Amino acid sequence: MLNFDFYNPTQILFGQGQIASLANLVPAGARVMMLYGGGSIRQNGVYDEVMAALTDHKVLEFGGIEPNPSYETLVRAIAQVKAENIDFLLAVGGGSVIDGTKFVAAGAMLDDDPWSIFEQRSANIVSALPFGTVLTLPATGSEMNSGSVVTRKSTQEKRSFMSRKVFPQFSILDPSKTFSLPPRQVGNGVVDAFAHIMEQYLTYPVNAKVQDRFAEGLLLTLIEEGPQALANTDDYDVRSNVMWCATLALNGLIGAGVPHDWATHMVGHELTALYNLDHAQTLAVILPSMLRARKEEKRAKLLQYAQRVWGLAGGDEDTRIEAAIARTEEFFNKMGVGTRLGDYGLGPESIEPVIAALEAHRMTRLGEHRDVTAEVSRKVLQMSL
Amino acid sequence: MLNFDFYNPTQILFGQGQIASLANLVPAGARVMMLYGGGSIRQNGVYDEVMAALTDHKVLEFGGIEPNPSYETLVRAIAQVKAENIDFLLAVGGGSVIDGTKFVAAGAMLDDDPWSIFEQRSANIVSALPFGTVLTLPATGSEMNSGSVVTRKSTQEKRSFMSRKVFPQFSILDPSKTFSLPPRQVGNGVVDAFAHIMEQYLTYPVNAKVQDRFAEGLLLTLIEEGPQALANTDDYDVRSNVMWCATLALNGLIGAGVPHDWATHMVGHELTALYNLDHAQTLAVILPSMLRARKEEKRAKLLQYAQRVWGLAGGDEDTRIEAAIARTEEFFNKMGVGTRLGDYGLGPESIEPVIAALEAHRMTRLGEHRDVTAEVSRKVLQMSL
Repeated sequence: MLNFDFYNPTQILFGQGQIASLANLVPAGARVMMLYGGGSIRQNGVYDEVMAALTDHKVLEFGGIEPNPSYETLVRAIAQVKAENIDFLLAVGGGSVIDGTKFVAAGAMLDDDPWSIFEQRSANIVSALPFGTVLTLPATGSEMNSGSVVTRKSTQEKRSFMSRKVFPQFSILDPSKTFSLPPRQVGNGVVDAFAHIMEQYLTYPVNAKVQDRFAEGLLLTLIEEGPQALANTDDYDVRSNVMWCATLALNGLIGAGVPHDWATHMVGHELTALYNLDHAQTLAVILPSMLRARKEEKRAKLLQYAQRVWGLAGGDEDTRIEAAIARTEEFFNKMGVGTRLGDYGLGPESIEPVIAALEAHRMTRLGEHRDVTAEVSRKVLQMSL
Repeated sequence: MLNFDFYNPTQILFGQGQIASLANLVPAGARVMMLYGGGSIRQNGVYDEVMAALTDHKVLEFGGIEPNPSYETLVRAIAQVKAENIDFLLAVGGGSVIDGTKFVAAGAMLDDDPWSIFEQRSANIVSALPFGTVLTLPATGSEMNSGSVVTRKSTQEKRSFMSRKVFPQFSILDPSKTFSLPPRQVGNGVVDAFAHIMEQYLTYPVNAKVQDRFAEGLLLTLIEEGPQALANTDDYDVRSNVMWCATLALNGLIGAGVPHDWATHMVGHELTALYNLDHAQTLAVILPSMLRARKEEKRAKLLQYAQRVWGLAGGDEDTRIEAAIARTEEFFNKMGVGTRLGDYGLGPESIEPVIAALEAHRMTRLGEHRDVTAEVSRKVLQMSL
């Protein structure tokens, strides 16, 4: 096991009816900004429940945070936070709203242009506004971690930052609020969580038995429950298991003391920035090819994955590995998420712009061995056509 | 899944060399009391490493906290904390030292007799001194939870409290510091962690798939690594896996959203208080009989345990269940912890005093269904002779 430093102070209130707890969780007397995305929270009852819980609070609203939240939108929120002396933020939505809120929480304390957070690799975040979240879409894990991804539309850049100052103080997870999600978001969410686990699990062995077992437990649960979540939109237990899986997939726990990959994510970010694919779509396209391309480096863990997650024990090693990757692709397809660039209308001409972007963003030494060069990424994209 | 409220802000620094981090973790200018047990930390190098890290701090020592830390000892520490204006505590040791430190941290803020914490079920804990820990014995999980058990020698009472005010701010876990533990403490630690998991896992199904998989992952790891820890005293990876298992066994995670039992612990506490058995010895004695006595109520989870943890799939249900319980006993014995009252010189005459103590402490509606009456406990003890 590698040395690690694990810290996660976010309080999770999980279950039906928990939104009412906001009345006590948000500090009395706080000037609250509630941040959200499109109009879905007005249709699924979440908006009304949140407002009912906060009748004794002063609440200002900031809607319109888009998927892949944009710098351009978020700086407007920061200006409003400053102008209105907001001292508590409440993110109500999915990972994009929460990521955006983290950027606002940190950016509101800076005098500089908040884009400096990326340029200074978070070193200029010395404090952040406190905030909580009400999660409506299980996927990114942002509700219980300190990471955030923001897109600058004007330059087509998708950048990320991490800071222990931007852990949510609390997150409310009510699985019944996910019943009304469209299938595409359910499928994307499951694929996103699955890929998060794989980025921390499918590297090389360091004899971290608990982390491996936990990662495998999450993968098995997503494989069992993901298709059920699509088939039965109002099964509370299924939605509960998916929701808790997605949180635990990226709250730091399974990644503590093990190597990380994240090459799939970095290539995927460029696909989203350039071609507007959903985040999960990019992961479904890249991950299987990345595993095939890195088969030798990942052999031991691929065999473990084949056996413990897919029950593939017989046959020669390469056959088991290929079968496990094929099962992974089948699973993504079953979740309604295509695994080829062609599924999204992208052909060979789409590849070089991605490589150019990776090079521009210095993403040319990726993966757990830092050997996923631009050339390897090109090969992976070609394998994903 | 049941509704839950999960919160755990303890920072974990894991790995060799982490004790040096104390220099930055303990607030500059703090007046520190370092609490510890017997002399083992002076022999295994921990004392020297801690002191080397804290050369810039004012450190007062309080040694002699005993296994099953006593109220009588801890009130002396509280008096000293008050007299010396201590504002940070550092527990260096195992679960007993850490439990004792939690009692000191909370008790130091009270004007009343700190025993009132138990009588008021922690309601009078409105603040506590901040503290960190350096763990030397993987077992109780106290390094990453908010619970504490204290024994009042004069009345032979073993009582517990929980409060979110007494989470350690940080805990340092260096597996290499466990190499020098005597086999009895290694075995006890593994059995203690195993029993903690079972109390939260082996109840009845609520379709909490992640929690079940995580619990099973921890049990499997302890079964694989426990005997290795006894056989190879300086295998860093093995000690790492055992140490992280013990922490995760009782940090709130696997218990979130599922029913809890704890009847084995409550009966076990009385055995320790009356006959001075080690805590883990009492668990090894009671747990198997408790599982047998509650076979019908626990049937579904016993079958799941038999299959997923012990790989027992064939034969009729009752055979599988009995085999799984027998394997559990074998495992405890392999860890050097006897599973019969007779192993500790206790005969039938030992039972009624335990029942009387359970009744005196109102421990007569135990277990996940609150139906482990004094009569059931008597039966369990008889089965454990």
